[in-house]
Amino acid sequence: MLKVAILGGSGYTGIELLRILSRHKSVKVEAVTSRQYKGRDVTEIFPSLRGFYDGLKFMEPADFSGIDAGFFFCAMPHGSSMEAVPGLLKNGNRVVDLSADFRIKQEKVYEEWYGAEHKAKGLLKDAVYGLPELYREKIKDAALVANPGCYPTGAILALAPLIKQGVIAAGSIVIDSKSGVSGAGRTPALETSFAEVTEGFRAYKVASHRHTPEMEEILGDICGKAVTVTFTPHLLPVERGILSTVYAGIKKPAKTPIKTPTKTNDLIESFSSFYRDEPFVRICPAGTLPNIRDVRGSNFCDIGLVKDERAGRVIAISAIDNLTKGASGQAVQNMNIMCGFNETEALDVPPL
Amino acid sequence: MLKVAILGGSGYTGIELLRILSRHKSVKVEAVTSRQYKGRDVTEIFPSLRGFYDGLKFMEPADFSGIDAGFFFCAMPHGSSMEAVPGLLKNGNRVVDLSADFRIKQEKVYEEWYGAEHKAKGLLKDAVYGLPELYREKIKDAALVANPGCYPTGAILALAPLIKQGVIAAGSIVIDSKSGVSGAGRTPALETSFAEVTEGFRAYKVASHRHTPEMEEILGDICGKAVTVTFTPHLLPVERGILSTVYAGIKKPAKTPIKTPTKTNDLIESFSSFYRDEPFVRICPAGTLPNIRDVRGSNFCDIGLVKDERAGRVIAISAIDNLTKGASGQAVQNMNIMCGFNETEALDVPPL
Amino acid sequence: MLKVAILGGSGYTGIELLRILSRHKSVKVEAVTSRQYKGRDVTEIFPSLRGFYDGLKFMEPADFSGIDAGFFFCAMPHGSSMEAVPGLLKNGNRVVDLSADFRIKQEKVYEEWYGAEHKAKGLLKDAVYGLPELYREKIKDAALVANPGCYPTGAILALAPLIKQGVIAAGSIVIDSKSGVSGAGRTPALETSFAEVTEGFRAYKVASHRHTPEMEEILGDICGKAVTVTFTPHLLPVERGILSTVYAGIKKPAKTPIKTPTKTNDLIESFSSFYRDEPFVRICPAGTLPNIRDVRGSNFCDIGLVKDERAGRVIAISAIDNLTKGASGQAVQNMNIMCGFNETEALDVPPL
Amino acid sequence: MLKVAILGGSGYTGIELLRILSRHKSVKVEAVTSRQYKGRDVTEIFPSLRGFYDGLKFMEPADFSGIDAGFFFCAMPHGSSMEAVPGLLKNGNRVVDLSADFRIKQEKVYEEWYGAEHKAKGLLKDAVYGLPELYREKIKDAALVANPGCYPTGAILALAPLIKQGVIAAGSIVIDSKSGVSGAGRTPALETSFAEVTEGFRAYKVASHRHTPEMEEILGDICGKAVTVTFTPHLLPVERGILSTVYAGIKKPAKTPIKTPTKTNDLIESFSSFYRDEPFVRICPAGTLPNIRDVRGSNFCDIGLVKDERAGRVIAISAIDNLTKGASGQAVQNMNIMCGFNETEALDVPPL
Repeated sequence: MLKVAILGGSGYTGIELLRILSRHKSVKVEAVTSRQYKGRDVTEIFPSLRGFYDGLKFMEPADFSGIDAGFFFCAMPHGSSMEAVPGLLKNGNRVVDLSADFRIKQEKVYEEWYGAEHKAKGLLKDAVYGLPELYREKIKDAALVANPGCYPTGAILALAPLIKQGVIAAGSIVIDSKSGVSGAGRTPALETSFAEVTEGFRAYKVASHRHTPEMEEILGDICGKAVTVTFTPHLLPVERGILSTVYAGIKKPAKTPIKTPTKTNDLIESFSSFYRDEPFVRICPAGTLPNIRDVRGSNFCDIGLVKDERAGRVIAISAIDNLTKGASGQAVQNMNIMCGFNETEALDVPPL
Repeated sequence: MLKVAILGGSGYTGIELLRILSRHKSVKVEAVTSRQYKGRDVTEIFPSLRGFYDGLKFMEPADFSGIDAGFFFCAMPHGSSMEAVPGLLKNGNRVVDLSADFRIKQEKVYEEWYGAEHKAKGLLKDAVYGLPELYREKIKDAALVANPGCYPTGAILALAPLIKQGVIAAGSIVIDSKSGVSGAGRTPALETSFAEVTEGFRAYKVASHRHTPEMEEILGDICGKAVTVTFTPHLLPVERGILSTVYAGIKKPAKTPIKTPTKTNDLIESFSSFYRDEPFVRICPAGTLPNIRDVRGSNFCDIGLVKDERAGRVIAISAIDNLTKGASGQAVQNMNIMCGFNETEALDVPPL
Repeated sequence: MLKVAILGGSGYTGIELLRILSRHKSVKVEAVTSRQYKGRDVTEIFPSLRGFYDGLKFMEPADFSGIDAGFFFCAMPHGSSMEAVPGLLKNGNRVVDLSADFRIKQEKVYEEWYGAEHKAKGLLKDAVYGLPELYREKIKDAALVANPGCYPTGAILALAPLIKQGVIAAGSIVIDSKSGVSGAGRTPALETSFAEVTEGFRAYKVASHRHTPEMEEILGDICGKAVTVTFTPHLLPVERGILSTVYAGIKKPAKTPIKTPTKTNDLIESFSSFYRDEPFVRICPAGTLPNIRDVRGSNFCDIGLVKDERAGRVIAISAIDNLTKGASGQAVQNMNIMCGFNETEALDVPPL
Repeated sequence: MLKVAILGGSGYTGIELLRILSRHKSVKVEAVTSRQYKGRDVTEIFPSLRGFYDGLKFMEPADFSGIDAGFFFCAMPHGSSMEAVPGLLKNGNRVVDLSADFRIKQEKVYEEWYGAEHKAKGLLKDAVYGLPELYREKIKDAALVANPGCYPTGAILALAPLIKQGVIAAGSIVIDSKSGVSGAGRTPALETSFAEVTEGFRAYKVASHRHTPEMEEILGDICGKAVTVTFTPHLLPVERGILSTVYAGIKKPAKTPIKTPTKTNDLIESFSSFYRDEPFVRICPAGTLPNIRDVRGSNFCDIGLVKDERAGRVIAISAIDNLTKGASGQAVQNMNIMCGFNETEALDVPPL
């Protein structure tokens, strides 16, 4: 049994890690830290877990050096992660970091968007971006995996096959995403309180959300040149789920020797082929589209495709559970890959 | 007191008309028809209205020829409206039609998207598109007003100032709209049942929704040339409200002598000026964005603006209540204009 | 125009007062105080009110002595109200206090349940409990009206006719209430955040909620003897509304000369007669039951009745909007009565 | 591998059975019938299951005689089940019936409440009521298990320890239950459509719901004498979950030699002891209460207890997922017991 520890386990990604790992055959959760809840029973704070972690108590985060574990999930806020990770790695542990701290390779971009100097620059080049559908081979050997942001996971998976084919017109990408409230974290705030959210819907951080450079860097890495996107996140009155509606203009055939996807069915075929061996990507059959309900509580990313022939645009729509494929599920998938477990272990369950 | 009648009053637009008209000083609802509920008390079907329409019963639709009313709201399904309206007008009545039947001037476009021959082509050229912010003067004298669709209302108001200025790059418009469930009507269906909708979110009729040609025709009318848009509607797990996130590329300055809006604040100023005298359009101050909650139950259209300077795109976001400004409220606004009442009568109340 | 002021106007009862008063013909809101938001525009904090209170700013609460108003709504937390009210009254103003501070006549009961000494005991005997259906005549002449709690309003109206008739068996009353989240106030807290409330339902403060003694005192006042109730509040995943399902055993006929209600229809008749002249109480016809949706945003209290003949129990179910009839609407109704306005002014609108 | 079949698999209990059984190590779903969907892929109708039942198609119900399975889940409507079950049993199969047809032993009570003659009376005495916490030993050997109703499951588990102790005063039981919308089934209806349910709450079938006699029969069986309850179901705006708030008066000590539970802590201890060995009943620690969120998607029944010492009443609150412990989860639990599998197989996962 692999002993794992969760640093910063009192947020929604923490409880989701605990929920998933309770089903894992080869893993034992040895420790969970939380400044806020230190010394209290995990099941007192998360009563849904009663019967699964009885006896486990939240530890003081500062004590993690004494944890007898070989694998760490770092679920701390960005800024804190980059202070903790170097110490963890030194002891020979392997780490999946769920914060933004190691996702962006260009430290200047990080510092511009996150407004703070990076404190572990030396680790940036070795950290692997934990999107298995694109970087599985690198993840296998990584000591440090930077778990992707929730919005980038869904948006990149909806764009990757097109980007790789090189058929998207420059500057034409618009990513219109809608996320459930759990994405905003567990700290109480007026704008995420029930009476402010129910029966409401709004955009926020339009064209200025920090996941923008993360998307652009990875999309650029796929196609080998700079990519600029317009990204608008919205807040949905649901607990879990992100639906990203992604628009991309298609290059005029004259300008590209590559066969361009001219029909919806071509798109579906092309995506199905691209993701043929992926256990967690499901391409919707023609005439159907993804719904965040159909991936709830699961590690799936469902993708639907439509060609707007009148306007010459592809519309690719992806649905994920922001806490599972968008965070903790993907983190466990990465751990499975890093540790040689079956990649779907603890994750092969249908959505609720 | 003007006597009004509502044809097809058992749907959500019907009850919304009744709700609004109960506050109207100069109007009396003389009759409401419904095939489904004929002979039953209005307040039995809509208990929220108890105390406001006691004694009023739904009539058989076929009997409307005997209704002693001078003004008709036609809230019947498209197809039925174009059969009823000619008869109503012959008797010298004035009509606001809430169906799609008289919105699209080009009968071929209607027939292509609605899949049926138009049966009252002769009325198409005289019917006025009932968006007061654009066509108020024509509405004043119209006998027949075609009340705009819910999606077009919000989308057109978000685009009109830019379209009029001629600064939008051809083919660059993407309209990503999210609507509450009441927009799907009151007829029970699996896909709008609570247990299928709650905690869900999905797109539907991507690049094929019938409101597309309506938007394109009116936007084309504003700028005097053909406009093509990509339009994606989504179903929100809320009762009321449409938020439309509208993306438009801005022409390169070289190509236009007109001063292009280069900053968010310029956009806000320009929109504020365009809608200066409009009682129901509210432009959000810098740093704030619309929320469908803030217009719920009201006739307001709130518009927020952001310039994505990195990508050279404008993002204009509008919020309306689909049953009020998107249907029955706008219908009453049109009636007020047609009948010389104060335009805001019965509509000048804050959102819930 | 009566000038009114709202003390503590930044909570949900504050915005609801502003929403209702914007429609009031004879009233002008002169001032609104808020410690949290002092100096900021009311419409910046509550964007739904844009266009109705432009220019009005929140004032520092301590400055209210300088407010030029003749009528005050005190919407401050309990404890603070009893410090402010004596000063307001001294200046000859009239006051509706929305806190719990003047609802309970027995200061010992107050101190036991609220855990603090009462600081304005001298006002207790003159404060009138502001439930117009029971105390209208006293309200007319009152300088200080204690606006009822949200739960007591619905529960007392569901029980009053039976209590007055003296047919309820001693010790048999169970009040099972379910409230929307806005009842918990606007201060952010984990237990009222969206991601914790949606798709959830739970009881809280079982048999220990502070509204219990308020109900018992008023019910006792109606029948002239002590009444004990079991009261269980629950949190509903909705914004607004309280449904109270009230159970009461009926005395055996032998023990009472009064005709006992033996059938559902008798109950409906008896309640309809009791509330015949009440503008805001609606008794549901046989076969129908109240729904919080049908009173949303309105000042109505809908009551449905069923006799469980097998078990010898009456089940009386009341629905109110906790922010309207349960708080601010009732406060305006009380002001209307105190000031000689039409009792339904600003309140005679259908629910949303 | 045990081959199982699901008759009537197109409702919410059908998909829930499929969801749960996909995790079962020792079971293979051989066939699913559905009149509505015959011939169509299961995953076309339930896209959340894509990847789990690819290739499985709904069969015509009439064909089940040819199904090669040894175990049947009958998820057909009541009335249809009693026609199908005798044939299934004749072939030596074992059956869990999820309808109401075999729950009530007294055929007259069935016929009175369900308004139809029972067509398989001969099976009533051998059918075992499938509440493992009370009837586990009988279930082991049963050929036919009548799976309990959703409301009775939660209500009976909240009352059983007290009923068994004999401390409840006669005629004092009130069961106030609140259920999610999935309990109403998957057939579209106006009263369960999203726009009618969201932000709403109401009671229905007050004192007349068909689960009443089921509760009374089982409670009577526990204590050996007739029990009458008042039962009020309500419709919650959530997808899944039932919270039952159960009130029971406690006999005066004089009247019973048994030690009566006088404090909340005594109740908790007594319930914890009663359910000590039960894998799916969790008693809430003092100071905490159940929430339907904490059992969502799981087979748990959480129970919280409070003594209202002022009124001499016990308040026992139970939470279940109506589709899991209230239907399909319990059905699988029964199958596990009947077939000698580990009782928690496929059910030992934390709630979502």
